[in-house]
Amino acid sequence: MSSKIDVPLGTRTYPIHIGHGILKNVAILDKIVLSKQVIILSDATVANLYLNTVKNQLHNKVCSEFIISPGEEAKSLDNFEKIISFMLEKKINRSATIIALGGGVVGDLAGFVAATYQRGISYLQIPTTLLAQVDSSVGGKTAVNHSLGKNMIGAFHQPIAVIADTEALETLTKRDFSAGIAEVIKYGLIKDHSFLKWITENVCSILAQDHDSLNYIVKSSCQIKSAIVKMDERENDIRAILNLGHTFGHAIETFQGYGNWLHGEAVATGMAMAAKMSSRLGYITDINVEDITTLLEKCGLPTEPPKEMTPDDFLTLMSRDKKNLGDKIRLVLLKNMGEAFITEDYPERILIDILK
Amino acid sequence: MSSKIDVPLGTRTYPIHIGHGILKNVAILDKIVLSKQVIILSDATVANLYLNTVKNQLHNKVCSEFIISPGEEAKSLDNFEKIISFMLEKKINRSATIIALGGGVVGDLAGFVAATYQRGISYLQIPTTLLAQVDSSVGGKTAVNHSLGKNMIGAFHQPIAVIADTEALETLTKRDFSAGIAEVIKYGLIKDHSFLKWITENVCSILAQDHDSLNYIVKSSCQIKSAIVKMDERENDIRAILNLGHTFGHAIETFQGYGNWLHGEAVATGMAMAAKMSSRLGYITDINVEDITTLLEKCGLPTEPPKEMTPDDFLTLMSRDKKNLGDKIRLVLLKNMGEAFITEDYPERILIDILK
Repeated sequence: MSSKIDVPLGTRTYPIHIGHGILKNVAILDKIVLSKQVIILSDATVANLYLNTVKNQLHNKVCSEFIISPGEEAKSLDNFEKIISFMLEKKINRSATIIALGGGVVGDLAGFVAATYQRGISYLQIPTTLLAQVDSSVGGKTAVNHSLGKNMIGAFHQPIAVIADTEALETLTKRDFSAGIAEVIKYGLIKDHSFLKWITENVCSILAQDHDSLNYIVKSSCQIKSAIVKMDERENDIRAILNLGHTFGHAIETFQGYGNWLHGEAVATGMAMAAKMSSRLGYITDINVEDITTLLEKCGLPTEPPKEMTPDDFLTLMSRDKKNLGDKIRLVLLKNMGEAFITEDYPERILIDILK
Repeated sequence: MSSKIDVPLGTRTYPIHIGHGILKNVAILDKIVLSKQVIILSDATVANLYLNTVKNQLHNKVCSEFIISPGEEAKSLDNFEKIISFMLEKKINRSATIIALGGGVVGDLAGFVAATYQRGISYLQIPTTLLAQVDSSVGGKTAVNHSLGKNMIGAFHQPIAVIADTEALETLTKRDFSAGIAEVIKYGLIKDHSFLKWITENVCSILAQDHDSLNYIVKSSCQIKSAIVKMDERENDIRAILNLGHTFGHAIETFQGYGNWLHGEAVATGMAMAAKMSSRLGYITDINVEDITTLLEKCGLPTEPPKEMTPDDFLTLMSRDKKNLGDKIRLVLLKNMGEAFITEDYPERILIDILK
């Protein structure tokens, strides 16, 4: 079972191919990669598992690979510079294609290299984690981290295609798989109550990695995300709802040092906090909050921030969020189950209560 | 006397204001800068001359300034990172405006920061050198240098406006002014034979910095450039003719170490070399080459490459040019006086002859 959906962005429209085992389907890669020069960016763990599979299909290309260490720390300006130097030494020209083979870190870093190498070249996303398949590989956000904040240096640069092979998810640790589920739940929460209900009812078959369930959640997540990206590619407005849980979550990740909490874990906790805040403001009920928290916990995700983080720690880090336009912290909250909105209108003391 | 021309790029259309003394015209800046937060990027020389003029007009804004050392070496990934850190520390948000106050180095660096800070914010170009007014401030090319090549890391990111005050040119050294004239001559050579003739006939009044002559050459150059950028914003094709002399020129700049030859000087020599090559291939006459060389020399520009550069040095450095798509070096040559074209079709031995 495999599907193809399009991210509809005019001349930059691109396909997302989703299916179990599709990475071994030579025809797909052949149709997408038209350049002679190919650079594969991957991390040591993923390269060990899939680099040969990908390279074997590119036998008529000139391939170079650059392998980074696994983990969020690799998404640095330092690695960015190393990759650019590597490509210049290899005389990679502007018609080349970069392949991002890995999770969100690899995709964001490779995407930012593609966005800026000689002012922009093509790249293909082959996401191998659930988080990357449902979220970071779709929509053209690329970035590296800065010690003062996550994703602070980046660009919007759409890939030429995404290949999401759900077979790759079988090699994830339980913890990494759960972290991806956090983003899947997010799509239900922000935009599709019936999808949220489906997840709640089928949580066991999802966690058991049933092929059809995986295909369904990846496809549904990508569909919701592409519909939002289509409306607002550069996040001037509505696209920011995709950040549900991320304002709190990024603060946690920065506070803990990148990589100690997984991104999905921080987002799960952030979503629980956003849900509590939404209920305190009267938008959703306590039972809704309970349902959300229970679902996240069933998926093995944390819902409480680190004990050592004070409200001041949160406020300092959240005030650097990219969504903020003035002095107030902009939050994504839930108006209803399956409906998110962006707001600066809330009493500060309620936010502080939530952060305690 | 002042003029306004538009760079017509759909929703990203922006004005270029040209005139003597217009930087003191508060109304222009007021209409362009709508954000509360403003970051002025400048170099020490320019800041000394114009920073207060600009800041005085932004009295109702929250202004921060970041001053770099003058010279091409400042266009580095290192300075890029320092500016990003500075902005994060100042809690600059995505609605802020960056003002690039200076020459091409300041404009390219500020533009690349604007292109990538939190995935892109607005910037305004206030070019204070002739080279920046007629070339680098217009068209949205932003970049920093890499030790293996000029402008290798960058992005296309259009400014919200350009303010070219020709009064600023009065403080340039003769050498810097001449370097700018190289790009003015380029526009005549690639696209407008009658403009080239006008320059040749009025070279004295240009070098004497007659107000009307300056206004005319800046305006004509910007008009030619915007017409080309409109046709091909991302340089997939025709925009590359703006690189006449630059393939040879970048090789000279890289070989000499950034800053030893001025960009315009390297481009002048590169144009003389491209003219010779065009004549060897039978496109233009020896007399045309003589005319071009004489005009460049009258403007105080070099037309011979550094003696210590061998053909191999040139070939190695030119093979890294961003225009190249395969193994062959793509060149911009002259089909006629006032008409440039891009080609890979030439006998290698003729190129080597020219490089000797």
